[in-house]
Amino acid sequence: MIEGFLFSGIKSGIKKEGRDLGLIFIPQGACACGFFTKNVNSSYSVRISKRHIKNKIFAVLVNSGNANCFTHKEGLNDTLRLTEELAKSLKIKKKNVLIASTGIIGKKLPFSKIIKKIPLLVENLKEDVNLFSKSILTTDTFPKVAYVRLNFKRKKINILGIAKGAGMIYPHLATMLAFILTDAKIEKKLLREISQKAVGESFNKIFVDGCTSTNDSVFFLSSLKGEEIEKKKEIEKFSQALIEVCKNLAKMIVKDGEGVTKFVNLKIEKAKTEKEAKKAFKAISSSILFRSSLYGGIPNWGRIVAGLGQVGIKLEEERFKVESSNLKKKEIEIKVKLGRGRSFYQGWCCDISPSYVKINSK
Amino acid sequence: MIEGFLFSGIKSGIKKEGRDLGLIFIPQGACACGFFTKNVNSSYSVRISKRHIKNKIFAVLVNSGNANCFTHKEGLNDTLRLTEELAKSLKIKKKNVLIASTGIIGKKLPFSKIIKKIPLLVENLKEDVNLFSKSILTTDTFPKVAYVRLNFKRKKINILGIAKGAGMIYPHLATMLAFILTDAKIEKKLLREISQKAVGESFNKIFVDGCTSTNDSVFFLSSLKGEEIEKKKEIEKFSQALIEVCKNLAKMIVKDGEGVTKFVNLKIEKAKTEKEAKKAFKAISSSILFRSSLYGGIPNWGRIVAGLGQVGIKLEEERFKVESSNLKKKEIEIKVKLGRGRSFYQGWCCDISPSYVKINSK
Repeated sequence: MIEGFLFSGIKSGIKKEGRDLGLIFIPQGACACGFFTKNVNSSYSVRISKRHIKNKIFAVLVNSGNANCFTHKEGLNDTLRLTEELAKSLKIKKKNVLIASTGIIGKKLPFSKIIKKIPLLVENLKEDVNLFSKSILTTDTFPKVAYVRLNFKRKKINILGIAKGAGMIYPHLATMLAFILTDAKIEKKLLREISQKAVGESFNKIFVDGCTSTNDSVFFLSSLKGEEIEKKKEIEKFSQALIEVCKNLAKMIVKDGEGVTKFVNLKIEKAKTEKEAKKAFKAISSSILFRSSLYGGIPNWGRIVAGLGQVGIKLEEERFKVESSNLKKKEIEIKVKLGRGRSFYQGWCCDISPSYVKINSK
Repeated sequence: MIEGFLFSGIKSGIKKEGRDLGLIFIPQGACACGFFTKNVNSSYSVRISKRHIKNKIFAVLVNSGNANCFTHKEGLNDTLRLTEELAKSLKIKKKNVLIASTGIIGKKLPFSKIIKKIPLLVENLKEDVNLFSKSILTTDTFPKVAYVRLNFKRKKINILGIAKGAGMIYPHLATMLAFILTDAKIEKKLLREISQKAVGESFNKIFVDGCTSTNDSVFFLSSLKGEEIEKKKEIEKFSQALIEVCKNLAKMIVKDGEGVTKFVNLKIEKAKTEKEAKKAFKAISSSILFRSSLYGGIPNWGRIVAGLGQVGIKLEEERFKVESSNLKKKEIEIKVKLGRGRSFYQGWCCDISPSYVKINSK
């Protein structure tokens, strides 16, 4: 499917049930870039990956069930030891390992348990991404994988994305984990540029519950095995495909948000500026009253008016307009026409259901 | 109970069931001050009251079941006509009337229906506040009345507060309706000063759902019939009593928030500055994940860490501490010790339950 990447996903005992430890191995190394949470109380995994991302990357270790965050100083040392053990086992260096975690905050990772399972994790490496995509899930109800194949004159290029989401999702850099892999032969600087654009068009446009996780990480990795991306036309084609993969993952994350029953494509039209349009998107998608209306499928647009007024967007009644598709369906499009200018923004959001509270009260 | 005020509360047909039109009449006029929502898409009632509050006030008209907001230009004219009709009926001037509304946004008030009921509303005026306190409710489950009697040397002073709350409650000026009445003989400037302090210590310290209503109004009215408030000691005593009444109402609003099952006295300690302590209060009380934990009665303090990190408050793990009373009880005290300085803030907040979503999805 995609050259240069091997995957593994096993059960290490962090979670009571199911796979909870995943590995991506790139035997010949990958050119990488990463985007991280803006939450200042970030996890040890985020802190270490931020340091390592500038290096060539040979492995990405991921655990679910525990955020590896806020567990005092030992947490940091233990995390470093874990990457070291993995590096030894793969005959690479610690500085070439990225790490990502997701789960409960403030509870120590069972490091010895995990370290014991590293040989098994490495033994199980194969080309199939299936078990890896399962091992990174928490309250997600399905694995999230997106794939695009591009045809160039000489070679093909593959882009494979794997993500997890569900809770603590807020449009301020990808509040989730995502791994976007490609075999495109591409300069690091160009990869970073294109990736940044793709993140802006996808993971930064979603809203689930307004909570920014301590662990969000999005990694872009290229094994450089495929077609070279250099010319303007190639760059454009590759960039579009990368955006496509990221958009698909981002939408899956919203659709599989905790307790979500309605997926909304929310379009803000006729704003004064793009900044104002974004602000309007955030105000509406984060209004718990608006989200409750969505759950019930009732057109209570007054809650949109109140949400906009709360963030200082004053509306003229004769110019303001809301249009929507059938609110009783699972996928909805809502257009909010502010009547204040010509700018536009669009993102994806969802309802809140009683299940969201139930899931998070256990 | 309190000299100089008469009350009435009737059924006018705005709501399908129950009383929905209330009146406070001050035959000899009151010295008044008011605090209004910061939502820029405010209702016609708010706009008109903002203009009239500088005058001597003889009447306060309140309706529930409809926000009188965002119903195009006729809304404003009709509201003016309504105050005019009431003024005629009471033999006062339109400019001496305050008006407050609460309910659904964007739906026209049935003005003709209401105007027809004005004679009945006026006929029913009496000293008892009971029916008025019921007429202003929406999803509230009980009327909110607080009363304090102060003994001075010569006369007594009475303070009576009536409020409604339930949804769209956010600590940015009193996102609700409240009417604080007193017979204290007091200068307008001094009343405003003391009232402002009381609002800061009460209605501005509560959080229910983070939504700022288009209609919040708090009115302080004095009939000037009682003891004169002039000397420092009297001012202090009166001010304390006013704060007490406002605090009681504010707490009742949180306890009776839509779907609320837990009431929390949240104390932020050891912040760098008071501003930071307030920011921390807001971040925690508005975290829907933290509020879901409260509903379940589970001590998921990691969600407090994440909430604080989201707004840029970086914590040192060795210094940060959370203490709480029993989370399974209905009333909880939580102390969050940031370990960053010596400043303090305290406010009242609540859980989110599946019922909140159900109530607001109909």
